[in-house]
Amino acid sequence: MPEPAARVALLTDYGADSWYVGALRGALLSVHSGLDLVDICHSVPGQRIGDGSFILASTYAHFPPGTVFLAVVDPGVGTERRGLAGRAGERYFVAPDNGLLTEVLEREPDHELRYLENESLWAEHPSTTFHGRDIFAPVAARLASGTSLDDLGPPCAEPVELVLPEPLWDEEGLLSGQVILADPFGNLVTDLREDRLREHCREEGVDPADLLFEAAGRRFGGLSRTYHDGLPGEPLALIGSSGYLELAVNRGSARRLLGLGPGDRFRLRFRQEGP
Amino acid sequence: MPEPAARVALLTDYGADSWYVGALRGALLSVHSGLDLVDICHSVPGQRIGDGSFILASTYAHFPPGTVFLAVVDPGVGTERRGLAGRAGERYFVAPDNGLLTEVLEREPDHELRYLENESLWAEHPSTTFHGRDIFAPVAARLASGTSLDDLGPPCAEPVELVLPEPLWDEEGLLSGQVILADPFGNLVTDLREDRLREHCREEGVDPADLLFEAAGRRFGGLSRTYHDGLPGEPLALIGSSGYLELAVNRGSARRLLGLGPGDRFRLRFRQEGP
Amino acid sequence: MPEPAARVALLTDYGADSWYVGALRGALLSVHSGLDLVDICHSVPGQRIGDGSFILASTYAHFPPGTVFLAVVDPGVGTERRGLAGRAGERYFVAPDNGLLTEVLEREPDHELRYLENESLWAEHPSTTFHGRDIFAPVAARLASGTSLDDLGPPCAEPVELVLPEPLWDEEGLLSGQVILADPFGNLVTDLREDRLREHCREEGVDPADLLFEAAGRRFGGLSRTYHDGLPGEPLALIGSSGYLELAVNRGSARRLLGLGPGDRFRLRFRQEGP
Repeated sequence: MPEPAARVALLTDYGADSWYVGALRGALLSVHSGLDLVDICHSVPGQRIGDGSFILASTYAHFPPGTVFLAVVDPGVGTERRGLAGRAGERYFVAPDNGLLTEVLEREPDHELRYLENESLWAEHPSTTFHGRDIFAPVAARLASGTSLDDLGPPCAEPVELVLPEPLWDEEGLLSGQVILADPFGNLVTDLREDRLREHCREEGVDPADLLFEAAGRRFGGLSRTYHDGLPGEPLALIGSSGYLELAVNRGSARRLLGLGPGDRFRLRFRQEGP
Repeated sequence: MPEPAARVALLTDYGADSWYVGALRGALLSVHSGLDLVDICHSVPGQRIGDGSFILASTYAHFPPGTVFLAVVDPGVGTERRGLAGRAGERYFVAPDNGLLTEVLEREPDHELRYLENESLWAEHPSTTFHGRDIFAPVAARLASGTSLDDLGPPCAEPVELVLPEPLWDEEGLLSGQVILADPFGNLVTDLREDRLREHCREEGVDPADLLFEAAGRRFGGLSRTYHDGLPGEPLALIGSSGYLELAVNRGSARRLLGLGPGDRFRLRFRQEGP
Repeated sequence: MPEPAARVALLTDYGADSWYVGALRGALLSVHSGLDLVDICHSVPGQRIGDGSFILASTYAHFPPGTVFLAVVDPGVGTERRGLAGRAGERYFVAPDNGLLTEVLEREPDHELRYLENESLWAEHPSTTFHGRDIFAPVAARLASGTSLDDLGPPCAEPVELVLPEPLWDEEGLLSGQVILADPFGNLVTDLREDRLREHCREEGVDPADLLFEAAGRRFGGLSRTYHDGLPGEPLALIGSSGYLELAVNRGSARRLLGLGPGDRFRLRFRQEGP
């Protein structure tokens, strides 16, 4: 098992280029000035824990083993919500106990978590409004500096978990998925994972090339390989780099063209049935 | 007194993720490629020196002693405005002499400043339009590499100071404060410092829990502990993580709900008087 | 010739603070966890290769020799478009072969490029949708870790080149330039390089102070030294920090005042002729 490295990767909803991120960085370096800090991103849409969980799960495995992740999307700051830290697979995580780690923990069944209760590791007089700076950052910096998990607090066996959106079969017998979020290019990431989609195709005896998608009153077919398949301006579907089905538009924005956003549904026909 | 560390913290109004920040980083590393660079933020609202002063003062103390701060909000670039560098408390600062350091210097009465006049430390042919890259960054990098303050230029005894907004007593005998800026969550940071508010409460013999706030035609009472006190969607007031009174909304944006922004006023009653 | 340094400077159009940049950083560090990563910027307007070429050319020379630049503006990801890496002058570049390096290569005639064909240096199962993470980042990290250019792939003698906008003489005999992009302050960077402008002035026997600009139905004269020359709110022209003519407004935004954007034209009279 790799020890925590002196590297902290940051993910928050503080806003792109927010000075609150600056304060977080300062708090980390004040504990250990030799830390390497690296940003995942800070523009998780305001307080949307599910989006944070998805983005963390889509990116963490690309970082080296031993990386310590400081993830803060924390609408409940200052309430009874607890804090967590621990190891999941070969990496380390510090976050509020509000479901933000749901998808990472699902992918890394070998994990051990602690509740953050050792106040001697926090800032001296933690504010009630900025636990990122005053609790989570100091703990992450100490973890990245060699403090052992056992020193952080008692074991946490049942972290808060999000109920993740799942595709379902609707009354017409069609698979109905939903949009999780739009990426910066307007591609719509959905809740349909590649492995499950391929399984459905096998079960239905259908080649993915024959799939038919229905979204926002439009139909488009097949599983594309790149964002540039088909005609410019036309919608398409492909497996995106996060391993989920995405709705996209060749040289355009699916968010704009289809007018869909988080929570909106699309449907999937496994055969090209009649209209 | 800590010597300057090989770490430069950046604060500018170049815009979130502006390529001008990229040029600044390059200019710093070209002087000393081993520098650690860390961003506070770059989205100080365009050329608002007062906002820059507030953000710098709210964040600098969270960074380790010895950190060199490169702060550039510089509407007067290329004019007669001078440049400054120096030590304030246990940290170092490089900035235009336009008031940007006002609140840091107020908090750190033990400081020594120099005018930037040693042109041999600047870029070879400094532009008239980008002193951040051509003057301030090279000086900050040299300061962080061991160049002594004495080498930068002659002492500056009277840096330009901003007149900071201060709460005042209005004709009705109520304390009237103003909004300084909105944070990325829509919380409204005001000019009323916690220590002064508590002093006023003591003088008036009032418990902070009995304070009544008037803003944008609404009244709301007490001093909340977290952003989640009271009912969702209702305004509240609390001491924010920067040590100033903030107007906020439980699970919402005070900027949107109250429609207030920088310069707008609110009032404070120390007793729950009649309507 | 400086060897590649263990420093990678990033320029993409993934969006300011996009989580795709986080994945890119992780992919770089996974190859070599000791790399120094530094951002130029990530808000190149969506898939505008020309803007990326301009921003890269405006910033690279400010970074230390040996810096490895990872530049990804890649509308053709997953298509037949090839990948490039190489040395240009004293620095190293990794990018899609789509013209993104045009202006750097023009400024650095001493360059040697390779097509990226050594798949053993890429991620194991590269996606078809995210070559930045799966191909360009691993190659950049390996280049910054000592892998030689020869190991990357076969020589590339003719990289794809953009046709850059060039000022032209219009039917009235006036020099007509165009806006390339607006900077974060609303200054309009044009395609007229300082050296060529001065050459035109010499040829026409005109002092730059006597130039007359026509843009968006307004006329304004002379070549200003700083963004603060003339009256507040009035348009002006100056040589910006990138070495190109810029249209600007004293204490304002030329983009807003003049209503011009990329591709829009302005004209230049070398004498103050009659109306």
